[in-house]
Amino acid sequence: MIDFRPFYQQIAVSELSSWLETLPSQLAQWQKQTHGEYAKWAKIVDFLPHLETARIDLKTAVKSEPVSPLSQGEQQRIIYHLKQLMPWRKGPYHLHGIHVDCEWRSDFKWDRVLPHLAPLQDRLILDVGCGSGYHMWRMVGEGAKMVVGIDPTELFLCQFEAVRKLLNNDRRANLIPLGIEEMQPLGVFDTVFSMGVLYHRKSPLDHLSQLKNQLRKGGELVLETLVTDGDEHHVLVPAERYAKMKNVYFIPSVPCLINWLEKSGFSNVRCVDVEVTSLEEQRKTEWLENESLIDFLDPNDHSKTIEGYPAPKRAVILANK
Amino acid sequence: MIDFRPFYQQIAVSELSSWLETLPSQLAQWQKQTHGEYAKWAKIVDFLPHLETARIDLKTAVKSEPVSPLSQGEQQRIIYHLKQLMPWRKGPYHLHGIHVDCEWRSDFKWDRVLPHLAPLQDRLILDVGCGSGYHMWRMVGEGAKMVVGIDPTELFLCQFEAVRKLLNNDRRANLIPLGIEEMQPLGVFDTVFSMGVLYHRKSPLDHLSQLKNQLRKGGELVLETLVTDGDEHHVLVPAERYAKMKNVYFIPSVPCLINWLEKSGFSNVRCVDVEVTSLEEQRKTEWLENESLIDFLDPNDHSKTIEGYPAPKRAVILANK
Amino acid sequence: MIDFRPFYQQIAVSELSSWLETLPSQLAQWQKQTHGEYAKWAKIVDFLPHLETARIDLKTAVKSEPVSPLSQGEQQRIIYHLKQLMPWRKGPYHLHGIHVDCEWRSDFKWDRVLPHLAPLQDRLILDVGCGSGYHMWRMVGEGAKMVVGIDPTELFLCQFEAVRKLLNNDRRANLIPLGIEEMQPLGVFDTVFSMGVLYHRKSPLDHLSQLKNQLRKGGELVLETLVTDGDEHHVLVPAERYAKMKNVYFIPSVPCLINWLEKSGFSNVRCVDVEVTSLEEQRKTEWLENESLIDFLDPNDHSKTIEGYPAPKRAVILANK
Amino acid sequence: MIDFRPFYQQIAVSELSSWLETLPSQLAQWQKQTHGEYAKWAKIVDFLPHLETARIDLKTAVKSEPVSPLSQGEQQRIIYHLKQLMPWRKGPYHLHGIHVDCEWRSDFKWDRVLPHLAPLQDRLILDVGCGSGYHMWRMVGEGAKMVVGIDPTELFLCQFEAVRKLLNNDRRANLIPLGIEEMQPLGVFDTVFSMGVLYHRKSPLDHLSQLKNQLRKGGELVLETLVTDGDEHHVLVPAERYAKMKNVYFIPSVPCLINWLEKSGFSNVRCVDVEVTSLEEQRKTEWLENESLIDFLDPNDHSKTIEGYPAPKRAVILANK
Repeated sequence: MIDFRPFYQQIAVSELSSWLETLPSQLAQWQKQTHGEYAKWAKIVDFLPHLETARIDLKTAVKSEPVSPLSQGEQQRIIYHLKQLMPWRKGPYHLHGIHVDCEWRSDFKWDRVLPHLAPLQDRLILDVGCGSGYHMWRMVGEGAKMVVGIDPTELFLCQFEAVRKLLNNDRRANLIPLGIEEMQPLGVFDTVFSMGVLYHRKSPLDHLSQLKNQLRKGGELVLETLVTDGDEHHVLVPAERYAKMKNVYFIPSVPCLINWLEKSGFSNVRCVDVEVTSLEEQRKTEWLENESLIDFLDPNDHSKTIEGYPAPKRAVILANK
Repeated sequence: MIDFRPFYQQIAVSELSSWLETLPSQLAQWQKQTHGEYAKWAKIVDFLPHLETARIDLKTAVKSEPVSPLSQGEQQRIIYHLKQLMPWRKGPYHLHGIHVDCEWRSDFKWDRVLPHLAPLQDRLILDVGCGSGYHMWRMVGEGAKMVVGIDPTELFLCQFEAVRKLLNNDRRANLIPLGIEEMQPLGVFDTVFSMGVLYHRKSPLDHLSQLKNQLRKGGELVLETLVTDGDEHHVLVPAERYAKMKNVYFIPSVPCLINWLEKSGFSNVRCVDVEVTSLEEQRKTEWLENESLIDFLDPNDHSKTIEGYPAPKRAVILANK
Repeated sequence: MIDFRPFYQQIAVSELSSWLETLPSQLAQWQKQTHGEYAKWAKIVDFLPHLETARIDLKTAVKSEPVSPLSQGEQQRIIYHLKQLMPWRKGPYHLHGIHVDCEWRSDFKWDRVLPHLAPLQDRLILDVGCGSGYHMWRMVGEGAKMVVGIDPTELFLCQFEAVRKLLNNDRRANLIPLGIEEMQPLGVFDTVFSMGVLYHRKSPLDHLSQLKNQLRKGGELVLETLVTDGDEHHVLVPAERYAKMKNVYFIPSVPCLINWLEKSGFSNVRCVDVEVTSLEEQRKTEWLENESLIDFLDPNDHSKTIEGYPAPKRAVILANK
Repeated sequence: MIDFRPFYQQIAVSELSSWLETLPSQLAQWQKQTHGEYAKWAKIVDFLPHLETARIDLKTAVKSEPVSPLSQGEQQRIIYHLKQLMPWRKGPYHLHGIHVDCEWRSDFKWDRVLPHLAPLQDRLILDVGCGSGYHMWRMVGEGAKMVVGIDPTELFLCQFEAVRKLLNNDRRANLIPLGIEEMQPLGVFDTVFSMGVLYHRKSPLDHLSQLKNQLRKGGELVLETLVTDGDEHHVLVPAERYAKMKNVYFIPSVPCLINWLEKSGFSNVRCVDVEVTSLEEQRKTEWLENESLIDFLDPNDHSKTIEGYPAPKRAVILANK
């Protein structure tokens, strides 16, 4: 089983200490209601070897190198274990010579976002909806003091812990399997990321409040979500599915999103990037048995989803508390 | 103090009996945290006399008539008490010869809505955000089996109880001082009204779910809220205030609202009325010390609010669970 | 299933109304965790016929008489059903010509206790550990306003409801399947009985406090429990079992018990009856498949239990709050 | 304010880690309801200087020695602060040349108890009702791995923290301001002490269960409490006060106490010490403004309390889970 006690020890005398008032009891509760496969996935993490590590690069990639090259047999065993944690969505990871080629080239997004951020050096960071944690490691690579990711999906926790193990068990990043709505308002993070979450929320204004409650005064919000074209009053609410997803609620225009953020009390709100998701950024690989973007688009017109909505376009908005 | 025990007795062996699992403890808790003026307001209800009643009309108005006409002194005393419960927003009430001329001609709205409804005869009805309860009495007038209104504002509870006392203590309508989000999902009401509430909710989709959770399968929702012109994707979210109100969040177009209702799982969704609120329907009277609609509009252009948004326009939407 | 809603309706406007703040939610919770056989037992109550009743005697017995005598077949069917609710411990019941000959002649105890009590006429009574409710009916027979029995054993609830049905569905007595430690302190009962409970409590002083919390100021406690001979400092705490029972804790002398009651804040404490339980009062019958008193005593010396402790002797103590 | 976060950090990766599921939230709650003087007392701890320490002796006393002797002014300041934390009950402490001469010579008791105990070296220890913590330091002196004391009295917490500061801020002992009944059952302590607590409990059997719930299988209980002479069935329950104390409940004989422990599931139960408390062991000093033992005894007959009960006699019982 994944052990959260080292995390408790890390935060006990930090700005996050008050989290001990709720987190250990929530996770004890969580442990009793995990996904049926969780025990199997957690065991896979145990099966992975501790490898002597020569070098770790989190600045330009998420990459570890062994002291001595792995034998082909060793590589095959590790690949075998990692593939049992499929689908791998956010990546890519290069771990001791193994290339985990995930559905998303999350490094593309990072390269677009990073230049606009307040420098992450020495910051306490929360990554809401962190998935397998790719960006968390890149934040560590930028010198963050500590990165906490939250994501309730048990598989992502196990992927994260697998990667951590192959990154020489680095403890500067930690994944907590909760949703933001379950988190007590800590109000201490220097930077809060919410990337790819807002359009899955039934109540976008409540999500923005929850993000604000985690930031310290003056802290920076990095919000990335699906957007549509249109004026301040334009919001797409898909009737049933959007790109085959059932749980998509509000896809606002950029001016609309900026308005929501200002209404929520954020200041200095600005859009720093808008990009139609390309078939190079999100695609099928051997690390994914499911469908990917190409299957979600109208085969005759890639500017539309299969339901006829505008194809996914994503904006990055920064704001301060 | 207002006594909820007769209501508990009424529901104990009705379809609402399971509400006893949460309601009495919630109201005991509520009693400890009421508005500072609540005790004073509740005492005013006690001060009102029990009047012998010759006739009650709830079918064409909310009106009671005494067995013998009140003396001028009696009338003055009752008016004095009732005015301590100002502002009176929803009305009008005609009680033993006293005309409580409220800010709203709620009878106008009722006349627009009623013809479209499934007949209320023998129905169990919930009125969410019921205010002082004007429409609740009209529902009783249509033969409803029982009407439950919910509204967390203590003043409205006391207005309601004052009116009830002057309606010969009729117990077919009851006001419970809770918000819908505090109510356990009962799933038994034949008709649920939500009039003038949705635009005050930070999360309109959650509000629609909560309404649905109170309806029985096949029951009817009556939703009245502010709307704007525009297509299915058009939603006005006022930056700061709308018509001087701070707590206004989403003002959708009618097609947008219909889309939201369908997305929330309602069927047979249709708009039965759209009306710009007139200065005859919402206006200042002697029963109201506050401002009214005229003060919320641009003095030079009544088609706009003082902030420059489109003036209040309201739609009535019906739907079934 | 047993329906507690008529009880909620009965108490809603009585001195017990505040119990609605906890009782319905506790019983809804209880319903989810009942004994595996409970559904079967409750169905037996449903199977019993409603019989037209000519006469009920609760003053000298617990007895109902039919308008016209039951056929032998009818009798046999009822006996068949009632025997599925064995063992029947407290009785006897005479129901439409059927003699439910229980293990205990509880009428013996009643005859010893009743003469000493403040008259039960018009009193609100709590019977803690009421079993199948024999004494509750006798209290009703004495004119009690209402009798509430509590006992967490599901079988006793079903026995009680079976008897109630054959007593023309009398609703002046009600059994609530809770332990006293789960009851909110109501402080309104005129008389509280605790018979045969104290020696089963790990903490007798807490039990006395709980009983006091249910009484109104000035109300009467009727405490019946096992006692030993000895001075004020004498308490028997059986090492393992007492009369084959594992859950026996404190068996004090009468002076010791009086001291405990005074220490707990009761006044006017006095012992009104002490009696060695006879083999006539507790014995095997055809309504009981288990062992009875004779099996719990030393076969060679009936003054001792099979473990060598003094044989059961019971005292009745009265006290006032 | 006293900071419990270093304790959380200490236990996060120890056998006590699961305590984080309840302790931080309980202490956050506790902080909001502390004694009115607590803030003042906690500030006194802050006022005390950090003194460079040459030597600490916890093996034969509780004693610290400074690197260089304190000036008389320094000593007077420290004494002034410590006296604001009066009354000092358990001691004595010798701190940088200051002799805190407490009411109790707790070292007497320690000398009687220690020889009988399983060696404390490397053990995890719980001291229930630890007072200012004198014995906790002596346990540390015996090589305990960690000592946790619990006592809900805020003054004792501050005394303990004051002593800790003058013991070079030793963190092998920690005082948690809770009662044992509030503690989750940890089941991990090697030794559990309960000295001077049992006779204050309304339910001694529940206290014994709670102690057992904290021990690991095979762990050792050290129980010290008031006893009387008499056989296995002899228990003194003072009617009102005992030695002027109102909250004294059960004072059993030694055989009675042994029976209770066996009934509670302890094995290997034996009494290792019985001693009438002497006027040398408990007496008035200048560190105590209140009365002491001499005032609680019959002035004409020191074998009796002022109420006429046998004078305090204390037994030490050992047992294993």
